[in-house]
Amino acid sequence: MQHKKQLFIIKIGGNVIDHEPVLNAFLKNFAEVDALRILVHGGGKIATRMGERLGLLPNYINGRRITDAATLEVVSMVYGGLVNKNIVTSLQEAGCNAIGLTGADANIIPAQKRPVSTIDYGFVGDVITASINTKALQLFLENGMVPVIAPITHDAHAQLLNTNADTIAASLAVALSTEYDVRLIYCFEKKGVLENVDDEQSVIRFIDRSVYQDLKNSDKIFEGMIPKIDNAFAAIDEGVKAVLIGHSDDLKQNISNETVGTLIQ
Amino acid sequence: MQHKKQLFIIKIGGNVIDHEPVLNAFLKNFAEVDALRILVHGGGKIATRMGERLGLLPNYINGRRITDAATLEVVSMVYGGLVNKNIVTSLQEAGCNAIGLTGADANIIPAQKRPVSTIDYGFVGDVITASINTKALQLFLENGMVPVIAPITHDAHAQLLNTNADTIAASLAVALSTEYDVRLIYCFEKKGVLENVDDEQSVIRFIDRSVYQDLKNSDKIFEGMIPKIDNAFAAIDEGVKAVLIGHSDDLKQNISNETVGTLIQ
Repeated sequence: MQHKKQLFIIKIGGNVIDHEPVLNAFLKNFAEVDALRILVHGGGKIATRMGERLGLLPNYINGRRITDAATLEVVSMVYGGLVNKNIVTSLQEAGCNAIGLTGADANIIPAQKRPVSTIDYGFVGDVITASINTKALQLFLENGMVPVIAPITHDAHAQLLNTNADTIAASLAVALSTEYDVRLIYCFEKKGVLENVDDEQSVIRFIDRSVYQDLKNSDKIFEGMIPKIDNAFAAIDEGVKAVLIGHSDDLKQNISNETVGTLIQ
Repeated sequence: MQHKKQLFIIKIGGNVIDHEPVLNAFLKNFAEVDALRILVHGGGKIATRMGERLGLLPNYINGRRITDAATLEVVSMVYGGLVNKNIVTSLQEAGCNAIGLTGADANIIPAQKRPVSTIDYGFVGDVITASINTKALQLFLENGMVPVIAPITHDAHAQLLNTNADTIAASLAVALSTEYDVRLIYCFEKKGVLENVDDEQSVIRFIDRSVYQDLKNSDKIFEGMIPKIDNAFAAIDEGVKAVLIGHSDDLKQNISNETVGTLIQ
């Protein structure tokens, strides 16, 4: 069996993007990582604020945010232009050859508009994992480029689609697992999955299926984390080597073998 | 001497981008061109309108538009996100493997903030042609990708810069001339340089230095075209094979040997 190279797919969300010092510290660390890597970013509150400045009213149905045409315009601009390009130029300054992309660029992430059942989410994309253009991503990676991916996909019929950044990261991890040993890292504002949500020191450092079952049986896991961990195991079932949930400040440790966040395997 | 492949660098501006049927017709033709090509786009009035919606007042000094921080934010969003990604997804639909980029992505177009002499233009970039990352552009081109370039560059110190799309197109043409036989095509709303501005049939089909001198001597050239033609000859002096000025509808003819616009050589 051929040895696969390691690839890190790292996702940052609003908690990183909305705090400039946190973002800058993260990007500096990210630039210094000496490994193949892809950064997937959310948009944080910048799109919401831009929408407000443009007079858009957030459109919710049953507590779910709807992406109408005006919102799609804002997220395309903010995620694909403003946030993405500012991250790219910051990484370039730090010596990391970043290339900013949406799922439309080089058709890297084809998606389909979410089918309407009870709710019409509007211009929201569900990633077609099997159609991800891994060849293009490999071409960038093997030529020293670091893809920085905004959470916008398209349906290959000229329609951009707003897409969840966590899902994009997981889908890329699964698709690229045929070529690489992938560790998928979710950066958030805690050190990891906590046994006690009020105690930052109570990080559960390792979760496998048996540990997970025990944690669930003993109610020792915060309910809000359960979908995230379920998704992590789903990714692992599809070939991803490991999923790590940790703090954006701890990127370097969590990329190493001495992880400090929650390693799910 | 090794034979060089032909490369077309095609620039479209506001007159194409602001008119959806014109843009769609152009993109359909562009997608069908069977040759190596790069598209450079301006932003048209979309950025101005977005700025107005956000309450920005255009900032002029001596008739020159200044790019202040708020304007830079808008052009980064509109050019790099909205306009670029909509062009990319439209080209993808038409079967053209477009990849949307700013000058910051893969550091393809390094620039310097325009030095302040009498006017401070703000966050405006002057392209450093000698530093253009031709290797990255070649990598895309030779792997079947079609770069679509927004008029945003950066200074490699984390500063995005608003940059004239005509200049980007000319700089790319010069830089890539070492590897390719480049024809630089400026698409605008006329069929070419006209001998009589009121007569669309009076296209001057060919201009070389001797023709140009005659036209200038006999006052047979519209004054507004002189800087464009001077720039065309400057590009030719630096290795570009030919510059063509023509209508966006005539792309296919102007890419062939049977040009209908103004061919400058």
